Amino acid sequence: MFAHGMKSVVCALGFLVLCVTSSVEAADDPLPSWNDGSVKESIVDFVLRVTTDGSPDYVAPANRIATFDNDGTLWVEQPIYTQFAFAIDRVKATANQHPDWKTKEPFKSVLDGNMKAVASMGEKGMVQIVAATHSGITTVEFNDVVATWFKTAKHPRFKRLYTDLTYKPMIELLEYLRAKEFRTFIVSGGGVEFMRAFTEESYGIPPWQVVGSAGKTEFRMWDASPTLVKLPEVLFVDDGPGKAAGINHYIGRQPIFAFGNSNGDKEMLEWTANCMGVCFMGLVHHTDAVREYAYGPDSPVGTFPDSLMQQAKGSGWTVVNMKDDWKVIFSWEKPSP
Amino acid sequence: MFAHGMKSVVCALGFLVLCVTSSVEAADDPLPSWNDGSVKESIVDFVLRVTTDGSPDYVAPANRIATFDNDGTLWVEQPIYTQFAFAIDRVKATANQHPDWKTKEPFKSVLDGNMKAVASMGEKGMVQIVAATHSGITTVEFNDVVATWFKTAKHPRFKRLYTDLTYKPMIELLEYLRAKEFRTFIVSGGGVEFMRAFTEESYGIPPWQVVGSAGKTEFRMWDASPTLVKLPEVLFVDDGPGKAAGINHYIGRQPIFAFGNSNGDKEMLEWTANCMGVCFMGLVHHTDAVREYAYGPDSPVGTFPDSLMQQAKGSGWTVVNMKDDWKVIFSWEKPSP
Repeated sequence: MFAHGMKSVVCALGFLVLCVTSSVEAADDPLPSWNDGSVKESIVDFVLRVTTDGSPDYVAPANRIATFDNDGTLWVEQPIYTQFAFAIDRVKATANQHPDWKTKEPFKSVLDGNMKAVASMGEKGMVQIVAATHSGITTVEFNDVVATWFKTAKHPRFKRLYTDLTYKPMIELLEYLRAKEFRTFIVSGGGVEFMRAFTEESYGIPPWQVVGSAGKTEFRMWDASPTLVKLPEVLFVDDGPGKAAGINHYIGRQPIFAFGNSNGDKEMLEWTANCMGVCFMGLVHHTDAVREYAYGPDSPVGTFPDSLMQQAKGSGWTVVNMKDDWKVIFSWEKPSP
Repeated sequence: MFAHGMKSVVCALGFLVLCVTSSVEAADDPLPSWNDGSVKESIVDFVLRVTTDGSPDYVAPANRIATFDNDGTLWVEQPIYTQFAFAIDRVKATANQHPDWKTKEPFKSVLDGNMKAVASMGEKGMVQIVAATHSGITTVEFNDVVATWFKTAKHPRFKRLYTDLTYKPMIELLEYLRAKEFRTFIVSGGGVEFMRAFTEESYGIPPWQVVGSAGKTEFRMWDASPTLVKLPEVLFVDDGPGKAAGINHYIGRQPIFAFGNSNGDKEMLEWTANCMGVCFMGLVHHTDAVREYAYGPDSPVGTFPDSLMQQAKGSGWTVVNMKDDWKVIFSWEKPSP
């Protein structure tokens, strides 16, 4: 109140130039949801270094490639990956077409609502659930099912649509980079067709700039119309070393900016760090159990092991401390006053 | 001479308005290397129908997706695919690292310069040659080798760089579509890394809008630097039904415009024809043995079988008669006066 009152007094006293300058600066801040500090500074400094004409580190727009992980980097990934939440709902919704699931694991536990048992089956159970719910359907039908699900499914803790739970600071960062003539890409372990249901509207990233994991499809004529049927076979796994391979295969150009949040992003960051000039590597460290979740080197979840934190520190990568660096977390929230 | 003389006289007589109008019209022609006729008209009509505000067939810019085959559609593919010419040169250039090739087919015949014997080995021999010359090398090294080759290798008949042998009318078409807010993509059976060496400079298409066939890569740390080593294993074959699958997987949006020139483009055209509103499907028919090559339903080469011509006619697809429809063939040529 005092500060605000003071500002009014100063304005009233006629120091109009000062007031106007200050207000323009706030309006010009490309990252208003980021608190001032070394992290925000490192981002803005890097962007200005590579985009300012005459800078020794100038990079032509064609080479301004930025890649972002999705789960945990652009939106919430706890308590389970959103795509896995979709798969669980899909098992329940299609159970009547699969009577054998009543007695067959991991489907039985899903139908019984026994998520602890599902979790105990680990990655193998998860892969079975995803494969079963992401195949035997045409690509067009699948896209419809996903789009419908996104309109109604809600996050168990925040009771909001999943698309409300994208990170506002990261969306500002995507927009800032594009305003500076970067091309922004998603490079995620998530399913590419699942992500494309919302990436353009939520992040401003068109489908062909989304790199993800995918299954094979089969071309079939159906009543004289061509269809692609999703098969339960893996085409590409865009995770870990697969992210470097994915960048080369799908994007075809060296990134100079990359952001991740877990060990699955290690090779993407290493690949980016291999750029010719200066490059920026960032990690989101989830440290805010109150507003979001806290997990990392000090947590049993383990997607951000201590080895990754040490590598980040040793390599000069920027680590976002979510609690301190983000003024606002989610895209549905209003910016702080 | 007479017509030209007449025009001068008319101008001299002071019909300036008429002269200026006529010259503006010529300058405004988005496809100056295309002869007037039903083919050019069908292209322009379609583009205006889907891009004119208020048209019943209007399509929003986000959905203006156009896909083009490369070999035989955007550049010359005779007497052999350019990529195969590269592979042949590469066998010769690296033979000293492979002493066994002196006695091992199909490499022996390549080194002996016996291209008839190579041709007699058919697709199997070609696949062996491509696999051997496109693997065991890092992606960065491969890109360098390809870029160097493009600077010197010449077409056996036209004695010009291969990048001079892109089709001028098709480049005009790509530019016209982009001026009308289409997104242009390549969807080719050719190797994606090979194509990316020239597609941005020659066609204005950035690497991530190039869909092609590809081998797998393996991530390896090399002296503390990450590299991707090209493996002799297939990741994706972007041909025939694979083109429909490729459009879905790499682009992720339904095209409304597609151009091909062979049976390998059939499914891409069928997939495009399945669009919601109006869509355009085109085929280049090579009919000009004097300026380029003539092959098609009436030729033993067989990439454009009669069944495809019948399907095109029955489905209302546009078939370009290269001899009649193209004023100029190659990008290095000056436009006709």
